Amino acid sequence: MTENIIGIDLGGTMVKIGIVDPKNGILKKDEIETKIELGFERVVERICQKITEIVDISNVRAVGVGSPGSIDHDKGIIKFSPNFPDWNNVPLKAEIEKHLRLSVFIENDANSAALGEKWFGEGKGKDHIVVLTLGTGIGGGVITHGKLLTGNTGIGAELGHMIVDPHGPICGCGNYGCLEAMASATALIRYANEGRKRFPESKIFELEKQRGVLGAREIFDAYRLKDRLATRIFETFVEAMSVGITSIIHIFNPQVVILGGGMSKSADLFIPKIREKVDMRAIPSFLGTFEIVGSKLGNDAGILGAAAIALENL
Amino acid sequence: MTENIIGIDLGGTMVKIGIVDPKNGILKKDEIETKIELGFERVVERICQKITEIVDISNVRAVGVGSPGSIDHDKGIIKFSPNFPDWNNVPLKAEIEKHLRLSVFIENDANSAALGEKWFGEGKGKDHIVVLTLGTGIGGGVITHGKLLTGNTGIGAELGHMIVDPHGPICGCGNYGCLEAMASATALIRYANEGRKRFPESKIFELEKQRGVLGAREIFDAYRLKDRLATRIFETFVEAMSVGITSIIHIFNPQVVILGGGMSKSADLFIPKIREKVDMRAIPSFLGTFEIVGSKLGNDAGILGAAAIALENL
Repeated sequence: MTENIIGIDLGGTMVKIGIVDPKNGILKKDEIETKIELGFERVVERICQKITEIVDISNVRAVGVGSPGSIDHDKGIIKFSPNFPDWNNVPLKAEIEKHLRLSVFIENDANSAALGEKWFGEGKGKDHIVVLTLGTGIGGGVITHGKLLTGNTGIGAELGHMIVDPHGPICGCGNYGCLEAMASATALIRYANEGRKRFPESKIFELEKQRGVLGAREIFDAYRLKDRLATRIFETFVEAMSVGITSIIHIFNPQVVILGGGMSKSADLFIPKIREKVDMRAIPSFLGTFEIVGSKLGNDAGILGAAAIALENL
Repeated sequence: MTENIIGIDLGGTMVKIGIVDPKNGILKKDEIETKIELGFERVVERICQKITEIVDISNVRAVGVGSPGSIDHDKGIIKFSPNFPDWNNVPLKAEIEKHLRLSVFIENDANSAALGEKWFGEGKGKDHIVVLTLGTGIGGGVITHGKLLTGNTGIGAELGHMIVDPHGPICGCGNYGCLEAMASATALIRYANEGRKRFPESKIFELEKQRGVLGAREIFDAYRLKDRLATRIFETFVEAMSVGITSIIHIFNPQVVILGGGMSKSADLFIPKIREKVDMRAIPSFLGTFEIVGSKLGNDAGILGAAAIALENL
């Protein structure tokens, strides 16, 4: 019997699809535009069509889908998602099952990232794993005693909305000083824009001009060049991450804290600094009990995480 | 067959012992002085002697022990405990089993408090419970998806050492701005003493003089009298608790956050204020998913928690 799983990484712009062997990872992958303007049923139909084009369904055991937003895993619905503003309580699981006649399991993208690390990444063989996905926002996924922590109504593990500094800037969630408000790419870009008038000569803005874009990467690259504004932003980022991760370690006593998401491309730069600060802060009995590492799954994290949702449930 | 359990609440000064019926709670209880100066073996011998005096051992199914400090539940040892400075890696479980020939289970006191609430208190019938024990320090116990969260090396759920304000005062753990450093009785007393010179006429110090003691209770009572210094301390306490509990709710998505420990005697005073602030801070999708309540177990919390350790493991 086949063990292969289809992993669907449902993004607002693109849908990534992969056939995943539980032991060896991705066998084949492809992607299509999401085209949300076509409406829920049509989007799902297009995804299923694409799947049947790239794989013989009879060789597939199950399907996993990772999606941003608030997911009801048990009911198989997307309750709401920032990426799909018109999709409220849509029956994603049932709709895909109708087309493919395979078991389908869905989970939000940060939980999916945690499962992906457990099955394919830096969490392999571990039962106590915390994943932070660093990007536009900061997502959290927690595996404790081998099981995904989702909480009472399935919306837990919002580690991006731990308050790391009550005097910090306002967050998208309405709170002040959440980790996400202090250390997401959005926060870093906001810090840069706030500094633009005072530091018009900053290398951040040189890079922005050259590349036509201002993101976390431009700020990290300017920091590598010892730029003054970029250094202040970098230090603020490292400080907030260190406070958050210290609390995470005291709370979960994990074996590993894995930093994923788009910003993890610069992990080599900030992980040693964060590690140093966390080691200075953690309660002595916790020293040596944890690692802090960057995700190695790169662009495949979404597909592998999605496949892991199904693997975890089979 | 009997279902009764012996619960032992091992304190630095007193040991409380109770016979507990899983359905109806404490049937009988007693206490003896700990007398740690007698040494580990003799202390355990005295406890077991007391037990055989108050109960017919043949009517007991198992024994649970809650102890402060770092406990290795699996090995059944106290690794170290602030209350028993000379007890390092002592085999508490084996030593009691030797005397009583009953199964013995041990856990630290904050985890024990969480189990006590699950079996006998405000967490009954719930699978997602967070307990904060507010006293000299702040302990944390977490039940998530029905299971006690202890972490990879058994030292997790240190919710008192979440950082709630990185600019806050130094904590006993060496960190700055832990919940414990901002909101424990020790913190409140420190705030009062810091204000003594400026507010010598504060009702806090009147009460201290009358009662011969300065604790959290004197500060809360002075707050009831609208004392100025006590009000500032109270507001600082409520603010720190609200920040910590908001993060806890985002992390664990619990059904209930239970405030126990000695300070919970004044819970009527501070829970409505904390609740109001947490409701203003929590992400909207979390509103209505949680309660914040005071423990109702009072002075029996230790014995019931200890018995619950055994019940949880049988």
